[in-house]
Amino acid sequence: MTDLTDINKMSNLESLINPQSIAVIGASNNPKKVGFQVLKNLQEAGFAGAIYPINLKREIILGMESKASITDVGPDIDLAVIAIPAAAVKDVVLACAEKKVKSIIIISAGFAETGEEGSKLQDEIAQICQNAGIVLLGPNCFGIINTHSKINTTFSKNRPSEGPVSFFSQSGAIVASIIDWSKSANLGFGKILSLGNKALLNEAAVLEYLYNDAQTRVILGYLESLDIDTELSQILKKFAKTKPTVFIFGGKSAFGRVAAKSHTGSIVSPYVSIKTYLNQAGIVAVDTMEEFLVSARSFAKYNTITGKRMAIITNAGGPGILALDALSYHGLDLAKLTDETSRKLQENFRAEANFHNPIDILGDATDEDYAKAIEIISADVNVDGIALVLTPQSATKINETADIVSSYSGAKPLISAFVGGEFLTEAKNKLRQTHAPCFDFPEETVTALAALYKFTSKKQELEIANKTDACLFEIEKKLEILKERAFPVLDYIEVNNVDNLKIEAEKIGYPVVLKTADLTIQHKTETGGVITGITNYDELIRAFDKLGGKALIGKMIKSKLEIFLGAKKEPGVGETIAFGSGGIFAELYGDFSYRIAPLTPEMAKNMIAETKIGKILAGARGQQPYDLDKLADLIVKTSRLMQDFNNITEIDFNPILVNDAGYYIVDARIIVE
Amino acid sequence: MTDLTDINKMSNLESLINPQSIAVIGASNNPKKVGFQVLKNLQEAGFAGAIYPINLKREIILGMESKASITDVGPDIDLAVIAIPAAAVKDVVLACAEKKVKSIIIISAGFAETGEEGSKLQDEIAQICQNAGIVLLGPNCFGIINTHSKINTTFSKNRPSEGPVSFFSQSGAIVASIIDWSKSANLGFGKILSLGNKALLNEAAVLEYLYNDAQTRVILGYLESLDIDTELSQILKKFAKTKPTVFIFGGKSAFGRVAAKSHTGSIVSPYVSIKTYLNQAGIVAVDTMEEFLVSARSFAKYNTITGKRMAIITNAGGPGILALDALSYHGLDLAKLTDETSRKLQENFRAEANFHNPIDILGDATDEDYAKAIEIISADVNVDGIALVLTPQSATKINETADIVSSYSGAKPLISAFVGGEFLTEAKNKLRQTHAPCFDFPEETVTALAALYKFTSKKQELEIANKTDACLFEIEKKLEILKERAFPVLDYIEVNNVDNLKIEAEKIGYPVVLKTADLTIQHKTETGGVITGITNYDELIRAFDKLGGKALIGKMIKSKLEIFLGAKKEPGVGETIAFGSGGIFAELYGDFSYRIAPLTPEMAKNMIAETKIGKILAGARGQQPYDLDKLADLIVKTSRLMQDFNNITEIDFNPILVNDAGYYIVDARIIVE
Repeated sequence: MTDLTDINKMSNLESLINPQSIAVIGASNNPKKVGFQVLKNLQEAGFAGAIYPINLKREIILGMESKASITDVGPDIDLAVIAIPAAAVKDVVLACAEKKVKSIIIISAGFAETGEEGSKLQDEIAQICQNAGIVLLGPNCFGIINTHSKINTTFSKNRPSEGPVSFFSQSGAIVASIIDWSKSANLGFGKILSLGNKALLNEAAVLEYLYNDAQTRVILGYLESLDIDTELSQILKKFAKTKPTVFIFGGKSAFGRVAAKSHTGSIVSPYVSIKTYLNQAGIVAVDTMEEFLVSARSFAKYNTITGKRMAIITNAGGPGILALDALSYHGLDLAKLTDETSRKLQENFRAEANFHNPIDILGDATDEDYAKAIEIISADVNVDGIALVLTPQSATKINETADIVSSYSGAKPLISAFVGGEFLTEAKNKLRQTHAPCFDFPEETVTALAALYKFTSKKQELEIANKTDACLFEIEKKLEILKERAFPVLDYIEVNNVDNLKIEAEKIGYPVVLKTADLTIQHKTETGGVITGITNYDELIRAFDKLGGKALIGKMIKSKLEIFLGAKKEPGVGETIAFGSGGIFAELYGDFSYRIAPLTPEMAKNMIAETKIGKILAGARGQQPYDLDKLADLIVKTSRLMQDFNNITEIDFNPILVNDAGYYIVDARIIVE
Repeated sequence: MTDLTDINKMSNLESLINPQSIAVIGASNNPKKVGFQVLKNLQEAGFAGAIYPINLKREIILGMESKASITDVGPDIDLAVIAIPAAAVKDVVLACAEKKVKSIIIISAGFAETGEEGSKLQDEIAQICQNAGIVLLGPNCFGIINTHSKINTTFSKNRPSEGPVSFFSQSGAIVASIIDWSKSANLGFGKILSLGNKALLNEAAVLEYLYNDAQTRVILGYLESLDIDTELSQILKKFAKTKPTVFIFGGKSAFGRVAAKSHTGSIVSPYVSIKTYLNQAGIVAVDTMEEFLVSARSFAKYNTITGKRMAIITNAGGPGILALDALSYHGLDLAKLTDETSRKLQENFRAEANFHNPIDILGDATDEDYAKAIEIISADVNVDGIALVLTPQSATKINETADIVSSYSGAKPLISAFVGGEFLTEAKNKLRQTHAPCFDFPEETVTALAALYKFTSKKQELEIANKTDACLFEIEKKLEILKERAFPVLDYIEVNNVDNLKIEAEKIGYPVVLKTADLTIQHKTETGGVITGITNYDELIRAFDKLGGKALIGKMIKSKLEIFLGAKKEPGVGETIAFGSGGIFAELYGDFSYRIAPLTPEMAKNMIAETKIGKILAGARGQQPYDLDKLADLIVKTSRLMQDFNNITEIDFNPILVNDAGYYIVDARIIVE
């Protein structure tokens, strides 16, 4: 990606997303051509501004006269949509620049996605736009939709209705799928943008626009890469908590595979880095398309939830229990109902009903029973959100209950699942009409509530990195630099004869550790290059012989705890810091938390608290609590080290031993490029 | 549950599931009464046998003359369906016994589910049936459906069409939901049984019947409890691998909560025990309703798959990538296509297509392109199954592609996802008509393939316990018994004065361990009751003083590895054996594998291999491999100990230290009742 120029920023996107006049370059009479479909979609959307078909043959297209070139058009043009073969695009862009067009969408494919030649062509075109101050979307994209301004420059066969959700996507096909889905889900969309190859305009500017767009209440993003820079960070820090934003990433596992090549790869994969960054920003990052769409529908109705105490109302034990299972999976709580609620339930329902959460109002529950239960439960101060489950039993008033659920207007989110098929069709249509989030399975009600809670609860932790002129780390001076910066590196003294050995051992005091002096050995513990727990002279001599009569000797630290602290520079993401359980099992247990630098001490403490080893360090399982301030300081220091030296790509402190007296870095591995 | 009598076994279920004559006791003219609905359903199902409405008022009901009592009916009766208030049921059952009815379904509620009184009544009725040799389904159940014999004794409003799937359920509401769903999914069902309170007939006999039923190809079960006994084990061992069987459990988390009270509860919860048992039997146990229904539809079409190498065919990169992500989540492999396949793809598709897996046949792929891709990919010897993803783009021939997918008749499973909404309605209807499994999201194709692979790959490990007359464990002789059975328990000698201490320490040799002699202290390590790594006399004296001048002394074992081995008797399930990472972090890391006793050495080795610590023990991460035969022997021995003593409820060996010389049980905790 070329650097984002000022022109491709939010303030200038108005001519792209809300243009007054649009030229369609490559407009065609052939219904199979994209240029035909785009023009037709634009007409059918009911765009009130001026439309200019551009076509070399100057045909009459869809009843409109076309010009041979954009320069032949008299009035000013806000937006040009280009749908012609890649080879002809550059000349057309030059013509657009001459005509002082403000924005361009290049739908045509055949650029960076095809290889080097296409990439070169794309760069040339981006440069032209940049020089001319033109906003550029694409190339290789699906166009945009703005239902509020009745604009549709895509070649989509279906089109969404107007609504509060906006969506941008790095995959055009996902846009087509989501638009088609939006119709059956009756979810209205505001702005839809297909980013394509992101030659100039990327997610940062689009996000800023959408955060500032009063008509957008929910933002969805499908991405396969994320251009993380100071600008994006600043935008997210400023706006991400103001509107629910849900991202899904394609290629999580592919990221993982590439990364698995390097040693720490399995601890810090690029996807882990990206998800860490988004989490810190307060964005809800989901893993499956189902979760993505469930979240979209829920946020379209409810922005927030007051907490994680959920009530389940059901007309059947089984499905209620499945929802309950999902609660614990998502880390939500089953609300403890007040005595008053229990009393009210007892007054209104037969004795066989379950007056505790999950509230089972029995198989013959009518719409009135559901209404009563909703009224009682939503008034309970201990309840933050409601999952309502309905099964179609013989006495069930399916459509009438749908009316009750539809007319609910309380502040506490009410998410329902009507579990069945054929008989529920009409009810689900009703619910869709009123935008009441209703799903197919009990578990999905909880997926929805969990998404709401994630957005509400997420502490935004994003810090903006101060770009300083970082210097280069001299690997030869590794220990010197670490000690200078007060890293608690264990001291080892080189000994190469038995007399020396004995003197140093007595100076240090048993038990001692001998390590191989051969610096080329990477995993010292695994290869037998470390001999620990030497308690007397006999053992010392044997160990020394085993290591070849030359070794490093140091104090044996008594410790039951080994921790891991590492960092990795991820191109395009930043410095990811990892903390967790260490030792030879570090990767096996996978007990890690992550943050993107820069880190504050508070963020470091959150990192510690998120891990299992962190719970031990804080005093779980009867352990004495260790000094967490000191540890947080060490984490921040490591993140600082990574940032201060341009050439460090990876840091691995593993293990760091822990005891009452402090933390001891036993092995420090630093990779520079 | 009362003991299962011979009469309530498979061979006798014919009169219940395939009766020639049916009496409906409580038949009514009131459409709101269950007795009306059951009779109506029976009539409408087209049952060819005799139907006898029984009604005290002897009304004409739905055109049929009714009798006041079942004893008034002349001919023999196979099945009586009872839908009258609970209080009147016992007399009616007595009348049924007098009439020599072969099977009874009690739909009425008001029995064990309501408390002690109802429970007593239920037991009395069960006893009557048992004495009279009557098969009893229920009470508090939804009845049965047998589409092949045109029987429907439920009060369901909807009814399934005929098909190869059979289903039994402990929740009547789930039956109602699944029937309704089956219509919209166009999935045919054979037998449906609602088990209700399982007074006599339970899942064991029903399973045996369904495994032997030629018309049933797939078995589904929804359960909230599982009655595990030798009979069930024998049935599963004999049949479970012959037909795909999918179970879902309601109440997983509720199980967990109850169990969390006891110390090992978090390691071996009742749900863990049950799921372990089902896994050993070769049954696919799923966690969500979505997975349950996706599996049902897939098994209805495909019974098996040859392996786990999957190909993804897509007309869009993004959704293909989402399917790819799901592959790695489910532990399936992305197939490596043969050179011939790549060549054939290159001959048939444009250069922009992706000829590697995931195979992207481009956004303008037609039905013919999909047909060509399916032909090429299904012929690849490296491919076991195919996930096909379609997004509705402008050139996509949606309905025609649905025809292609529908007409596929290859042996390799082809599972599709048509991702979108409105435009896909017709295509999805087509696919449902032909039973080609087609889902909404890319990830669901992989859920389906994973279910097929689970059934195919699962090794059945179920062993039948030999019930011997177990004796009682004498907790006072704990160490004696353990040593007698050659458990490697570490020896500790009690010392209570400094002279003694010194002598024993020198005999043992430094380093040594001192443990508190106070047997009431449970978690010795956490409470400071264990002092390890004592290397000299000074340290020894200090430690001895700290423990109050009385202690147990033993050899300090050098070990980097701590393992956990435990067992728990789960009422109604059996003895669950747990193995995994040990030490104070055992529960935090949750690195465990489980088996239900009895265990073979091979099963014990599988347990080891399934854990992370097992990979270390086998030599991962550069460790020397340890003696796994010896460890497997220890696991089998532990399972045997648990079985041999009736009164042991829990065993906890934690930690067991590991080094080159062997395994050392440092702390043995045995709970007897």
